[in-house]
Amino acid sequence: MIQTWLPSWIAAYHRGDLSADLLAGTVVAIMLVPQAMAYSLLAGLPPEIGLYAAASAALIYPLLGSSRYLAVGPVAIVSLLVATGVASLSPASPGEYLGYAVQLALLVGLLQLGLGLGRLGFLANFLSHAVIAGFTTAAALTIGLSQVKLLLGVTVPRTDSIFLLLRSLALQIPNANVAAVILGVGSIAVLLFFSLGLPALLRRGRIPEPWIVPITKTAPLAVVAAGASIAAVLDLGGRAGVAVVGEIPAGLPSVLLPAFSFVAWPDLLPIALAISFVGFAESYAVAKALASKRREKIEANRELVALGAANLAASMVGGYPVTGGFSRSVVNFSAGARTGVSSLVSAGLLVLTLTFFTSLFHTVPHAVLAGIIIVAVAKLIDFRSLKKLWRYSRADGASYLATFFAVLLLGVETGILVGAIVALCLHLWRTSRPHLAIVGRVGETEHYRNVLRHDVQTDPRVLALRIDESLYFVNTAYLEDRILSMVAERPEVRDLVLITSAVNFIDGSALDTLENLVVELRDAGVLVHLAEVKGPVMDRLERAGFPRKLGAGRIFLTTHAAIQALRSAPARSSPAEMTRQCNRISRTGGVPI
Amino acid sequence: MIQTWLPSWIAAYHRGDLSADLLAGTVVAIMLVPQAMAYSLLAGLPPEIGLYAAASAALIYPLLGSSRYLAVGPVAIVSLLVATGVASLSPASPGEYLGYAVQLALLVGLLQLGLGLGRLGFLANFLSHAVIAGFTTAAALTIGLSQVKLLLGVTVPRTDSIFLLLRSLALQIPNANVAAVILGVGSIAVLLFFSLGLPALLRRGRIPEPWIVPITKTAPLAVVAAGASIAAVLDLGGRAGVAVVGEIPAGLPSVLLPAFSFVAWPDLLPIALAISFVGFAESYAVAKALASKRREKIEANRELVALGAANLAASMVGGYPVTGGFSRSVVNFSAGARTGVSSLVSAGLLVLTLTFFTSLFHTVPHAVLAGIIIVAVAKLIDFRSLKKLWRYSRADGASYLATFFAVLLLGVETGILVGAIVALCLHLWRTSRPHLAIVGRVGETEHYRNVLRHDVQTDPRVLALRIDESLYFVNTAYLEDRILSMVAERPEVRDLVLITSAVNFIDGSALDTLENLVVELRDAGVLVHLAEVKGPVMDRLERAGFPRKLGAGRIFLTTHAAIQALRSAPARSSPAEMTRQCNRISRTGGVPI
Repeated sequence: MIQTWLPSWIAAYHRGDLSADLLAGTVVAIMLVPQAMAYSLLAGLPPEIGLYAAASAALIYPLLGSSRYLAVGPVAIVSLLVATGVASLSPASPGEYLGYAVQLALLVGLLQLGLGLGRLGFLANFLSHAVIAGFTTAAALTIGLSQVKLLLGVTVPRTDSIFLLLRSLALQIPNANVAAVILGVGSIAVLLFFSLGLPALLRRGRIPEPWIVPITKTAPLAVVAAGASIAAVLDLGGRAGVAVVGEIPAGLPSVLLPAFSFVAWPDLLPIALAISFVGFAESYAVAKALASKRREKIEANRELVALGAANLAASMVGGYPVTGGFSRSVVNFSAGARTGVSSLVSAGLLVLTLTFFTSLFHTVPHAVLAGIIIVAVAKLIDFRSLKKLWRYSRADGASYLATFFAVLLLGVETGILVGAIVALCLHLWRTSRPHLAIVGRVGETEHYRNVLRHDVQTDPRVLALRIDESLYFVNTAYLEDRILSMVAERPEVRDLVLITSAVNFIDGSALDTLENLVVELRDAGVLVHLAEVKGPVMDRLERAGFPRKLGAGRIFLTTHAAIQALRSAPARSSPAEMTRQCNRISRTGGVPI
Repeated sequence: MIQTWLPSWIAAYHRGDLSADLLAGTVVAIMLVPQAMAYSLLAGLPPEIGLYAAASAALIYPLLGSSRYLAVGPVAIVSLLVATGVASLSPASPGEYLGYAVQLALLVGLLQLGLGLGRLGFLANFLSHAVIAGFTTAAALTIGLSQVKLLLGVTVPRTDSIFLLLRSLALQIPNANVAAVILGVGSIAVLLFFSLGLPALLRRGRIPEPWIVPITKTAPLAVVAAGASIAAVLDLGGRAGVAVVGEIPAGLPSVLLPAFSFVAWPDLLPIALAISFVGFAESYAVAKALASKRREKIEANRELVALGAANLAASMVGGYPVTGGFSRSVVNFSAGARTGVSSLVSAGLLVLTLTFFTSLFHTVPHAVLAGIIIVAVAKLIDFRSLKKLWRYSRADGASYLATFFAVLLLGVETGILVGAIVALCLHLWRTSRPHLAIVGRVGETEHYRNVLRHDVQTDPRVLALRIDESLYFVNTAYLEDRILSMVAERPEVRDLVLITSAVNFIDGSALDTLENLVVELRDAGVLVHLAEVKGPVMDRLERAGFPRKLGAGRIFLTTHAAIQALRSAPARSSPAEMTRQCNRISRTGGVPI
């Protein structure tokens, strides 16, 4: 039992994997220290909270998760969700703010564990790619915008409206702190150089290829070290009024159950739900993308359990919610990580940092951390997906846009909910007006295709109609209307063959409607037949006694069998005679199913 | 323009229709007077309010509606919705209570007009038959239970919990007013006799068949007349403490815009929405059922406009919300109504009643009206649908039960919302785990069927997989998993043919997943092909450049063409060689679409 919960790589660990894991784990740790501090600041928390969360998550996830490469820790979007969620509760003090953040990690942990153990991982599929892309882009813009005040070294009143925020920022430009602007913009320039210019330079300098990724990924640490040194030497924190990180308590946090009041849980629950879903969706997408490159499998429910445990661990050491992040996981993979040992190495280095090196970070300017966040989230902005989606399917494009604007205008949590609901409604709207095709015979084959798209033969007395959708309550009324009008427009029709090759389900409402249709059309002198009924659908129809209710109508195995049988049937003159004749036809027996 | 809004029967009215319409309209009016008073009482309103609403609705609906037989006026379920909705706003006085009810009629009118003019009538389809049946049954039980206190002649504290209500009623049994109980139970007995015993008796007495329905439908008026006479003669209202209707103002109401404060509108809106949808769903179902018997058409959006106008008219004369009712419409139809003139006749008789006969109703005991309501709603209790639905489809049965219990335990408005959401979620859940069938060739035909259901031939190297669902974000992850495992279980497979005859749509998320699948399986040495792609789906795939992304995979017109082509393809040994060979195969060209 326990063994099935341990990841497969533990039993089969090779000594040869260790050096690769050591290198990758070190590279990730070098990225992680400044990112954890920056994201913690984005979440409105002291920088050490991000480090605590990062260390505990990196320690626990690899023991349970199904991904070998996922780097779990603080990430930008979850930090934003924490910031807006906790602020909406109007905490009275920084201590209460921190308390809420820690309780969120606990709640997210419990929710994700519960969803995983309850095998509800499939729920994350209710977020379509379009919704996720729209959400990520809008959230990245929101995050980037939230950092501009740190870049300018000014304070602006808190607001949920991006228009008010833009206005406040514009008004504060004259009050910008020049030193902060130089540090922030300088950091951005250095970070961009590391990722855009440096690799080519290193290759020209004949640096071996395997070293190039690790070197470029030291960029955040490099700007943090440079920024801290400059600020310390010039005393920017004191003399120039540049905001700096300040005292970070040295040493490890004590492990304890977070102190909390259950009073806040009803308010925290929706925020925790949003973080659980969004965090899982981001993490699962990265894990799957990396695993497929090595033909490994990711299990959704197992991932939920592992992320839940990581969040519980984070809350135990006073950290805030975590998830598998995109950029660090990709770096871990491309730096050569082989197993979860790489994540354990990162955790160890974080513990070392917390124990011995926190004093080095006292003078890191906020503007430098803001620069790191801005460069990180800029990569998440994805308008190309919108273009592709819009061209492929208007509904997907509309889902993207609805989520994008809802997140920008209504906030991140409401926004993703609106997006998910819009996507579901568009899907239902589409299935509520199914495509119907009148089909005819292709040449002398047994194949039947849409008369509008193919050169086919039809018989005016037999209307063969393919229904391109499952029949269920949302579309039954529409279908009944359309079929009745199609028959009404063709007075010469005496047999209607409903081809159900694309009907995967007929629900109770649709069954009622079909039964009505049979009666209504019989009164109009038209017999209803079915063809190409799928096995599971036929089982249900038989259980409900539908074949009897078809009366003289029949159920054919194939469209071809239906058309051949109905063409050769004698002409019918009156409804009364028709019924007699059809009874006779049906007594001769249809194709058995 | 105006002409298209007038019903078709107006231009073609026959003098011969008049006598039929006169008879049917009179029969409906005889039912309507006591029912309108009873339902008004159920809604917590004075009896004349129901009469005002009934007269105005019967006058306006036939001028706009598409049904010739629908009898619009106060109905039981809408009255219940008004009662619980208005009570939830805790009005301070009967005047304020009435004000809310009138404003509800106004709001319902505006909403239904707006929905109809905006052509949103299809939204009513989101209530499945199972949800409507579960709702109606639970609402009928709730209504019946709410009348027991009048039958007992006692008062009980208002409560939303049926358990508390049952307990209060049980505790009040010792205090029951014997005269009220005798009147109420006697009314129920007489009403049941009229509908169950009388028709046979009349037939035995050789009464002509056309008169039987009109005679039996005088039952409510008969018990009201008898009850009022008994109460007047014995002075039951004064001496025995039997609750009676009391003073009804004589004459017509003044026509005016209802006085209202917009303040209450945000609270009234959800109630008005529930009434609009439920009222429309009931009315539309009856109208369609009756129209189909005479091969006439009902237009959803036109019905919404007509019902909206009827509700606006009701609010103008100080009435409460109305809709097309089941029982009176059926009586109208079976009493021989030919056109909307029948409804105009009813309206005229109601105006006469209001002008001259209100004094006759002063002594009608509440217990008699409660008896009328109980007998009317008892016909709505429908557990047979549950049995049929459950046997046919568990999801429909579950929707019924969820709605039924939600209505009983959470109240009528929350209940129907819960039911609608449960039905949609069950639908999504079903489409999230689509049926997949491996198919093989039936004998020497060109037909391919599920290997588990038919005796078919297969080729171990070619896996032909039929996907029985549209591909969209809710099911892509599941499908990818299932397909990858199916291929993994069959190491000899080198070609996978996805048969998409039942795939009616591929959304953006599913397209991404398909592209990933092609790459993942190519790495595993398996080529992905498509067969039987529908026209609209193919158009989209081509727009997105998907055929190119299939690489050496091909798109076949039919499953047969795919299997024949792939069986004759040369054996492939290694992925690398495979790619070369497949490139060669693809250069020979597939079947053009």
